[in-house]
Amino acid sequence: MQDYDIVILGGSAAGITAAITARRFYPDKKVLIVRKENNVLIPCGIPYIYGTVSSPDKNLIPDAILEKNNIGLLIDEATKIDRNGKIVSTGNGETIKYKKLVIATGSIPSIPPIKGADKENVFSVKKDDQYLASLLKEVDRSKDMVIIGGGFIGMEFADECKKNRDINISIVEMLPHCLMLVFDEEFCEQGEALIKERGVNLITSERVEEITGDTKVEGIKLASGKTVKADLVLFGIGAKPDIDIARDAGIEINDKGAIKVDRYMKTNDENIFACGDCCEKFSFFDKKLVNLMLASIATYEARIAGANLFDTNRSNEGAVGTYSTVIGDTTLARSGMSVSGAADNGYDIIVGQAEGPNCHPGCMPGGNNLKVSLIFEKGTGVIIGGQLIGAKSGGELINLISGCIYKKMTANDIATFQMGTHPALTASPIAYQLSNAAEMAVKEMR
Amino acid sequence: MQDYDIVILGGSAAGITAAITARRFYPDKKVLIVRKENNVLIPCGIPYIYGTVSSPDKNLIPDAILEKNNIGLLIDEATKIDRNGKIVSTGNGETIKYKKLVIATGSIPSIPPIKGADKENVFSVKKDDQYLASLLKEVDRSKDMVIIGGGFIGMEFADECKKNRDINISIVEMLPHCLMLVFDEEFCEQGEALIKERGVNLITSERVEEITGDTKVEGIKLASGKTVKADLVLFGIGAKPDIDIARDAGIEINDKGAIKVDRYMKTNDENIFACGDCCEKFSFFDKKLVNLMLASIATYEARIAGANLFDTNRSNEGAVGTYSTVIGDTTLARSGMSVSGAADNGYDIIVGQAEGPNCHPGCMPGGNNLKVSLIFEKGTGVIIGGQLIGAKSGGELINLISGCIYKKMTANDIATFQMGTHPALTASPIAYQLSNAAEMAVKEMR
Repeated sequence: MQDYDIVILGGSAAGITAAITARRFYPDKKVLIVRKENNVLIPCGIPYIYGTVSSPDKNLIPDAILEKNNIGLLIDEATKIDRNGKIVSTGNGETIKYKKLVIATGSIPSIPPIKGADKENVFSVKKDDQYLASLLKEVDRSKDMVIIGGGFIGMEFADECKKNRDINISIVEMLPHCLMLVFDEEFCEQGEALIKERGVNLITSERVEEITGDTKVEGIKLASGKTVKADLVLFGIGAKPDIDIARDAGIEINDKGAIKVDRYMKTNDENIFACGDCCEKFSFFDKKLVNLMLASIATYEARIAGANLFDTNRSNEGAVGTYSTVIGDTTLARSGMSVSGAADNGYDIIVGQAEGPNCHPGCMPGGNNLKVSLIFEKGTGVIIGGQLIGAKSGGELINLISGCIYKKMTANDIATFQMGTHPALTASPIAYQLSNAAEMAVKEMR
Repeated sequence: MQDYDIVILGGSAAGITAAITARRFYPDKKVLIVRKENNVLIPCGIPYIYGTVSSPDKNLIPDAILEKNNIGLLIDEATKIDRNGKIVSTGNGETIKYKKLVIATGSIPSIPPIKGADKENVFSVKKDDQYLASLLKEVDRSKDMVIIGGGFIGMEFADECKKNRDINISIVEMLPHCLMLVFDEEFCEQGEALIKERGVNLITSERVEEITGDTKVEGIKLASGKTVKADLVLFGIGAKPDIDIARDAGIEINDKGAIKVDRYMKTNDENIFACGDCCEKFSFFDKKLVNLMLASIATYEARIAGANLFDTNRSNEGAVGTYSTVIGDTTLARSGMSVSGAADNGYDIIVGQAEGPNCHPGCMPGGNNLKVSLIFEKGTGVIIGGQLIGAKSGGELINLISGCIYKKMTANDIATFQMGTHPALTASPIAYQLSNAAEMAVKEMR
């Protein structure tokens, strides 16, 4: 029997970050990661395998990061947790004693119960390099690809699979717009225009009823009766927590199928923590459960879990929800609540918007347009959300907006924000979009 | 006699922003800008005239922004303020009544009392398009250019003047390193290496004693006795507040020659406000006077001054000091205090550093290295400064750091920061430099 102070189940973003954090907080403890995959994929990089990055091998998290931090690695599937004995068993018959256990088993792709979903050449986004390599082969061979789901993953896959390929790609989305769970309509429409410019066919407000074909997919049939030819189908409709080992051990699971955790990322067993996609998330705003799965949430949770294993050092204030994507060369990003989300939650809001080049003068090379929309609560003036579209600098600007939300800054605070500006890097200080979007809201509030 | 509710002296970043803010807060008031320049230059864009942007005409702030906001414009030099009568007089004999006056007269370049500084082909960075156009002609003709001062302006001019020209450029800097008033030594050295790679000659720890030549400059003589050949000399050693009109009117001036203002940007006259380079700045940290002149400070001050003209809406918490530059393709940026500045002010500090590509996987095209250094106060763990070098995304990341400083976030807060990450836009969530630099400091504090 092996004996470790800290055992972590899962070796992706949450597991690695929990291990490194534990190493920093508890330098004398023995730490082990148990994972079933030979190679760990960079989760957010998966769509880029199909265009920009060109192979799964180039999208791996190197194990060197574990060696460097003196973290043990066992490649084996954890199959059972004995909470009384504090022992994890594995598929290869290993047993490992732990003092503290972190469950970071992640998620598995959701496949809806659609007729024909088991046909040949129907794929989902499994975090498995061999599987993704076989998908790559099929994408290279495909003439007519259908992506089911027009969220970030669906849009990124479509954008990437189009690169250097003569391929028809259609996205089928149930909602009236792609990206609609993330953005308000104006931003969804701009995102849709961008992916259409890339030659992708969008089919919105449509549900897939059947995947047709003999043994191999030949097309899809929509609820409206329409059909779309397809030799390859990819599901990109989200994922569900991978919680079997936790449930079997009597760890509490919530009614949405995620591991229950407290504000210290602890489960109902005081020696077992959880973080990442496998565990529940609650909103920063109203502390209600939210359905968010992001590597950036997984890692911040892991930095909390890893720090709290032997004493309480950090607490979880809830997920703000900050995410970004790129379509073509255009960044789309969001943080906090959307206008529609705020309305659903009973917020009385004011929106301020500002738009202009992210450089000054506008003729500086490489400059792009950047539109920023900020959402404030009326009365308090506190920022509760932001969305942006345009220049790549938006990838960090959305993080600044996330910080403003986290620290509950008001429109007045943000209007007088002390940014640095530079001709090649940002808007001019007169036109800086963050300040001016806040100013537009301040004006409206008066 | 003309009659306005709000008269603003100066039409650059501070003046324009004060006018727009006043328009937003007081929509019914008549607003006039009085400025002497026919054309207003984008101040931070001036070095880029000499390379990337190629002419002063392309680096102007369009007057359309004034028309759009219903702001009057008088191109004329304000020569006198009659505080009793509340009247401004101009060089062309106009008189303008005001209810509230904003002084935003900016700064003028400092020229040290060096022998020969009045010779032909000795320039400074005057915000005057004709003057800068004549400097452009001389740069195009020059074979041997000397820039006196190795701060942001000097470095940016050197970098730009090298573009597409066969020219020898030397920077003479009094201090042991260029950029030393901004960055700690490690970052200065990296910045110096970058400008040297661009073929610029650096002469540090040297003082210019004389500019030699007949009527026209032929060289410079250094205090060490060394000489440098030069057919063109540019002073880039800073600027001093342009306060003559204010002083003549009995507005209080501090002992550093800047207009005194309170936390609402009001001078000793309750109807006269000041903002931008002409007025004093105090530190966000210890509220002591600081010598900072940045367009981004000018605009946030203008957003305070413009809002407070008829009633108090905003206050100044002091300058954090956030600035960025680009040398070659590399961003250098700083916010808050440096290590040496913190030591000078008696802070007991801990520094955390993290470095890695600003994309994931590292092979994503366009990805660059990014190093982030964060400075925390020991004990409280509160962030007081940050410096970074590398990818262009650093231009907005430094603004996130500025926000963290402004909201007094601790290393623990920042370590669990809720950023969004994307393969093409940022580091991976495991390696995100901001979080990891904070983690390194947390580790050190334990």
